[in-house]
Amino acid sequence: MNTPASGSPGSPEDRAARVVLTWLAEPGNRTVWALVQEHGAPAAVELMAAGEIPDASLRAAVLAKLAGHDPQRLADAALRKAERLGARIVVPADDEWPGQVDSLALLDPEPPGQVNRDVRPPLCLWARGPWALADTLARSVAVVGARAATGYGTQVTSDIAYGLAEHDWTVVSGGAFGIDAAAHRATVAAGGRTIAVLACGVDRPYPAGNSAMFERIAEAGLLISEWPPGSEPLRHRFLIRNRVIAAATVGTVVVEAAARSGAAQTMSRVLALRRVAMVVPGPVTSAMSVGCHELLRSHPDAILVTGLGQVLEAVGRIGEYASDPPRGHSHPRDELDQESALVLEAVPGRGTASPDELALRSRLPLRTVLRRLSLLELAGLVERRDGGVALSRRPGAGR
Amino acid sequence: MNTPASGSPGSPEDRAARVVLTWLAEPGNRTVWALVQEHGAPAAVELMAAGEIPDASLRAAVLAKLAGHDPQRLADAALRKAERLGARIVVPADDEWPGQVDSLALLDPEPPGQVNRDVRPPLCLWARGPWALADTLARSVAVVGARAATGYGTQVTSDIAYGLAEHDWTVVSGGAFGIDAAAHRATVAAGGRTIAVLACGVDRPYPAGNSAMFERIAEAGLLISEWPPGSEPLRHRFLIRNRVIAAATVGTVVVEAAARSGAAQTMSRVLALRRVAMVVPGPVTSAMSVGCHELLRSHPDAILVTGLGQVLEAVGRIGEYASDPPRGHSHPRDELDQESALVLEAVPGRGTASPDELALRSRLPLRTVLRRLSLLELAGLVERRDGGVALSRRPGAGR
Repeated sequence: MNTPASGSPGSPEDRAARVVLTWLAEPGNRTVWALVQEHGAPAAVELMAAGEIPDASLRAAVLAKLAGHDPQRLADAALRKAERLGARIVVPADDEWPGQVDSLALLDPEPPGQVNRDVRPPLCLWARGPWALADTLARSVAVVGARAATGYGTQVTSDIAYGLAEHDWTVVSGGAFGIDAAAHRATVAAGGRTIAVLACGVDRPYPAGNSAMFERIAEAGLLISEWPPGSEPLRHRFLIRNRVIAAATVGTVVVEAAARSGAAQTMSRVLALRRVAMVVPGPVTSAMSVGCHELLRSHPDAILVTGLGQVLEAVGRIGEYASDPPRGHSHPRDELDQESALVLEAVPGRGTASPDELALRSRLPLRTVLRRLSLLELAGLVERRDGGVALSRRPGAGR
Repeated sequence: MNTPASGSPGSPEDRAARVVLTWLAEPGNRTVWALVQEHGAPAAVELMAAGEIPDASLRAAVLAKLAGHDPQRLADAALRKAERLGARIVVPADDEWPGQVDSLALLDPEPPGQVNRDVRPPLCLWARGPWALADTLARSVAVVGARAATGYGTQVTSDIAYGLAEHDWTVVSGGAFGIDAAAHRATVAAGGRTIAVLACGVDRPYPAGNSAMFERIAEAGLLISEWPPGSEPLRHRFLIRNRVIAAATVGTVVVEAAARSGAAQTMSRVLALRRVAMVVPGPVTSAMSVGCHELLRSHPDAILVTGLGQVLEAVGRIGEYASDPPRGHSHPRDELDQESALVLEAVPGRGTASPDELALRSRLPLRTVLRRLSLLELAGLVERRDGGVALSRRPGAGR
């Protein structure tokens, strides 16, 4: 492996800068993301330290945080601490970076009635465990749900997660009590790979009551987090974390959810990112299934699944498993940002177009078109074909 | 009330002929229905007795049945027996005829993969109970499901039926053990009106184990059947009967159903007739919910309902109850017969057209257009407006 030039993506400076940026502002922040895209991470740190950012409240928060701190020292300390713990930092320039999380850049930051303001892609991921992120997440399904799961939910979750592991799928969940823990445990029991995406440092996974489970996951699977070691599981971080679970996986299964839970937001993103949204129904007399039924009623493109077979069918490549005709009609475009929507609009319904043609048709700069195209490709909305760009032939089939 | 001329619709001859026709061939038979439409019921009996019908196997069956019988005497006996029992016969010419069942004539008798061959409208209905059919069925919801219902299904059914009765909706079901009986009983308990649509004579409702319940229904609601008193509940008659439940009501709720049950066929017809198809989910671990989940997976226009509120919302006129946006996209045209589809196709997307214009555009005779229009109107697909015919403004709102 060549050592990248100082400050370039993947260099020690780039890594350290991403650590600092995550400390200065919560992951997903769109101002920070835009600066990194435009100038690179090290320059973004300098601009923020110099107060040269458009967002006034962010500027004030950053300057207050930096007072009396040397960002470089903070980053070094975090990286040393991680090394002691057997954790590593993964950045977009690394081979093991799971590129599909970058498709979060496609989400419209301001859809009406949505709280998508700060859903930009992660700047870095901390990881503990023996597997490379990209490979392990390439065939992964999220299984998530209520902390206050019932025996019913726990049983259904265990059956699905165990079976996914047996079919060589990685199971991803959030590490919480209830459905999350049932998913991780069943996967470990099946000898499969499970990934806990945490809303705190990988050195002190929350909740502590699951710590024996987390140790097993760190040995047999992966603990990953956007926050550096030592970070607290603050309440708002769970919502920030959820976007990574939605984007990193081929599909998400919600097993139990209370009324008006966070599951609705997760499902909207899963669908917007063209991942497979799956929901397990339950007794209408169970408070823990109310959220699942809400999801099925309000998201016509969410798929009702009753067990492993239907999950495999929904996430499997067409033909790999027997499949139902896809139900409903997907409108992922509705949640795309304006530039992405314009580029997608310009792609012909049949045949292909060159990026130059797309730039002409969309009236966007070629550079913008190229950037959006790679994200649209990651999201499974377009594909390269016959030397041009075409609409994806596998709508709804995930990435 | 004027006495209709001999042999004309509603005359004693017409009634007797309809009794004979139902005895000669099972209700819904399309050959019989076509003869009655063309020639009237008394002439249809004569043609059939003379062997002048195109369907060879029906002709043979009819002649064998008639051997040694006087059809007029049979009809008289059935009508006398009914009178003794406090039952009456209702025919299309009667004020209390529930006209919406005639929209069954819209169903394509030969859609691919469907068993709709003999789903023509009833020729007559036998009734026991104090209410007029048309009024009682105008605001009615079918609540149906498995005989081998679980405690869960029985509870959910009772809650929904009781609540429907409290909101002045008539509850319609099939009289079977399990979900049907729970629906009838809860409605009676609420002091509401319930209708059992039977697959046998109204004098000996099946199953006998529910006979106390049937007596209560005959006092407080209605027992109705297409078959004359004394008829046996033959196995194939339940499927024939089901089309009446689908067509007579504003919507149908399926509470529990085993895998590959008859509920799928019922739901297809409910949707084809533009009625509201509702399904209650349940535990994925319950064999009695497998059919419900199949329905929800395979019929994107079926609405998942978790209780009374969502049922009322789905069947209520727009604005009468708070309502969700309708989900999915209805294609009732897919199951229409060809003539109806052509007429519907000819109705302009905006504004109105006269029947003459529709005849020109559809290249069908004006008489055919007029007949199809009244059925399309009953099915809620078109409406009279500004002196012409327009597409219905209330898609999905039932009749």
